Amino acid sequence: MREQETQQHFQAVTESLESGSTMQTRYLLNGALPAQDVARLLESSPPKERNLLWELIEQKNEGEILQYLSEEVSAQFLRKMDTEELVAVTEQLESDDLADILQNLPETVVTEVLSSMTAQNRQRVEALLNYPEDSAGGLMNTDTITVRPNITVDIAFRFLRRHDSLPDMTDNLLVVSRSDRFLGTLPLTKLLVADPNMSIREIMDTETTIINASAPADEVAQLFEKLDLVSAPVIEESTGKLLGRITIDDVVDVIRDQAEHSMLSMAGLDDDEDTFAPILQTSKRRAVWLGINLITAFIASYVIGLFQTTIDQIVALAILMPIVASMGGIAGSQVLTLVIRGIAVGHISSSNTRWLLNREIVVGLINGVVWAFIVAVLTSFWFDDIRIAYIIALALIINLFFAALAGTLLPITLKYFGIDPALAGSVILTTITDVIGFLAFLGLASAFLL
Amino acid sequence: MREQETQQHFQAVTESLESGSTMQTRYLLNGALPAQDVARLLESSPPKERNLLWELIEQKNEGEILQYLSEEVSAQFLRKMDTEELVAVTEQLESDDLADILQNLPETVVTEVLSSMTAQNRQRVEALLNYPEDSAGGLMNTDTITVRPNITVDIAFRFLRRHDSLPDMTDNLLVVSRSDRFLGTLPLTKLLVADPNMSIREIMDTETTIINASAPADEVAQLFEKLDLVSAPVIEESTGKLLGRITIDDVVDVIRDQAEHSMLSMAGLDDDEDTFAPILQTSKRRAVWLGINLITAFIASYVIGLFQTTIDQIVALAILMPIVASMGGIAGSQVLTLVIRGIAVGHISSSNTRWLLNREIVVGLINGVVWAFIVAVLTSFWFDDIRIAYIIALALIINLFFAALAGTLLPITLKYFGIDPALAGSVILTTITDVIGFLAFLGLASAFLL
Repeated sequence: MREQETQQHFQAVTESLESGSTMQTRYLLNGALPAQDVARLLESSPPKERNLLWELIEQKNEGEILQYLSEEVSAQFLRKMDTEELVAVTEQLESDDLADILQNLPETVVTEVLSSMTAQNRQRVEALLNYPEDSAGGLMNTDTITVRPNITVDIAFRFLRRHDSLPDMTDNLLVVSRSDRFLGTLPLTKLLVADPNMSIREIMDTETTIINASAPADEVAQLFEKLDLVSAPVIEESTGKLLGRITIDDVVDVIRDQAEHSMLSMAGLDDDEDTFAPILQTSKRRAVWLGINLITAFIASYVIGLFQTTIDQIVALAILMPIVASMGGIAGSQVLTLVIRGIAVGHISSSNTRWLLNREIVVGLINGVVWAFIVAVLTSFWFDDIRIAYIIALALIINLFFAALAGTLLPITLKYFGIDPALAGSVILTTITDVIGFLAFLGLASAFLL
Repeated sequence: MREQETQQHFQAVTESLESGSTMQTRYLLNGALPAQDVARLLESSPPKERNLLWELIEQKNEGEILQYLSEEVSAQFLRKMDTEELVAVTEQLESDDLADILQNLPETVVTEVLSSMTAQNRQRVEALLNYPEDSAGGLMNTDTITVRPNITVDIAFRFLRRHDSLPDMTDNLLVVSRSDRFLGTLPLTKLLVADPNMSIREIMDTETTIINASAPADEVAQLFEKLDLVSAPVIEESTGKLLGRITIDDVVDVIRDQAEHSMLSMAGLDDDEDTFAPILQTSKRRAVWLGINLITAFIASYVIGLFQTTIDQIVALAILMPIVASMGGIAGSQVLTLVIRGIAVGHISSSNTRWLLNREIVVGLINGVVWAFIVAVLTSFWFDDIRIAYIIALALIINLFFAALAGTLLPITLKYFGIDPALAGSVILTTITDVIGFLAFLGLASAFLL
């Protein structure tokens, strides 16, 4: 399998680096290994090794490798290049990859890189730069094969044969009018079985999925997934003109990012997080998240502080209170995760929120009662005090009820206000379950035990 | 955009259901809406509506819709069918989808369904059933277009034209020997620009990515992502015989599942979790996870209990101790998430673990010191006691150090022992940061404050 080969390649590079044989490493990085493997090797390397490896890569290979690197890692290398190097490297890139890279560079550099290009290429790239990176326009490529509707199948074949090669992932010919207006697609699979004398117009698909250049990348990904597309034409909405096409390989990246986004955000990590970012950069990013969570922790402590005299009299409360808070936190994050994922895949809408909320509350109460009973039994044995057992049981049920409520409504509400539920959800949820857990347990204890 | 259309469709079905007009709903479900939209509608519906909708779908459409449903949801419908219905429905499916479905049915039913099929189809499906669902063999389809190497390009064209249609996602012809041994691929993009008199052997690619039927689905997904494939041939390892091909649409599902797996597992949820599962099923699953976490909570409480007399004398400790535990938990899960993701995308190996561990420990200590200082200042103002401030600061640094250690080594160790780090990691990590947090804070307080 190729996967094992990759591992062997990595091993080979590591060994040749360690032995100090730069010649062998140079050989491996410049052609012996596929560009994708070199990119993965760079992403899997700590900063020092990463820079060392990059220096051993010849300029003519840099462009191809750059396009396989994550944005954060490629930016590290691009920042260090002067304009001349940038121009040399970017000459080797496809227009969509180049546009992605240019979007992360200072304006003055972009202008210089653009001015060094041929007029035709510049025009292409400038067209892409008009669209945000996470839109259909930012995802598209301009390497379309277009035909007119009035030619015959046979002529289409002859037209294709005049090419030296067709772009990768060409599964459709795109049919356009004389003024470049998009008319329909002709799948190669259909062209190949068609009667040579038919005209393109007669056999082309007009019910094709058309993507507007301004459509968000998320929507494009959902369409590709739903309709099992390999490529789809992108048009300018106002004129209906064909601008380019989006291919599945770029969409797969969107799908992976989208699916990983929630997990990383819930831990306060960036989508494009570099596993091997240097110490200071990592410290700074993590510090922010810890700071936000520290506020949560102090709010919880403040609530406990309100019941200082109660705890002073019954120390068992201090021992048991984390149980109530943590069970609420766990139950709440299960609901939160489920709802965040449901929103991301488009399963949750206003029509089914009510049912979901009802179910979660019932599930929360059922599990509240079940675990309240078990915790109560364990507690009454531990502290030999049936009143504390009653109180922790009741507090647990209350907290699991609010955990269900918050876990369901919080992400939906955040989403409604345009706040990323994955990023803000877990912090707010923990605050809620901590506060309610301590409030219920210590409050009930103050009321009934003193 | 299609996405808006889908929403409108959903709206239409909901309204027609509510108005009691089953005729209108029937019309929408049976042809007016694409099968993918019907599947998504079913997945977005609570149990009662879901069953109602399913009853309105005509048998002849059920098969197509089934293949777009998640396993858990499709199993709900399949379980209720008798064998006759199953046979009727499964007749409409592609062989790989059928094999997936059969793998979830009782053996006796499978035998009956198979015996109802034509010999050729049975053979195809039986071949797929030999491979686990999450292997290349389980992902593949048998709809390959094969040619012999000795024919010319021109004859290949004529051969293709004899088909009424070519399978979707056909981007390659697969070249095989007389005994069905796989020899190479011929991309359509290459065929279309080739000289008609050349032989297939002369222009075919032999350096093609070949996938063994036993390869795990994860590896297949990595290959497709790395090499931007649309389809790839699957062979029987021992004989080199062509068995079928895997297409990107099935791989996209694997990629999404893979990326979602970590997030869902970390919250103790199933990969294939049905957002709208009924109450009892949901309660049972959640209860298990709460129970596991309850053990963690009791361990933490036990540790606090060890310092009962200390807390009894200084109640401020009870108020502040959750801060130490929760900051450790947050810092630890950031590292844990990063490492789990790094393992999943193949960035972490034995050669870079050491660097990563070092970085995480340094980052943990830096952030430990920074936040310890801030917490100490806040605490000394709150409780007017500089000694408690020193102790919470020290405890925080200790806990963030161990959080970094556990967050890095735990997933790597679990992975080494074949345990899913996403599933077990978060529970064990919380136990560690809770125990160390309480132990350090209360232990130091006992030693220096009493």
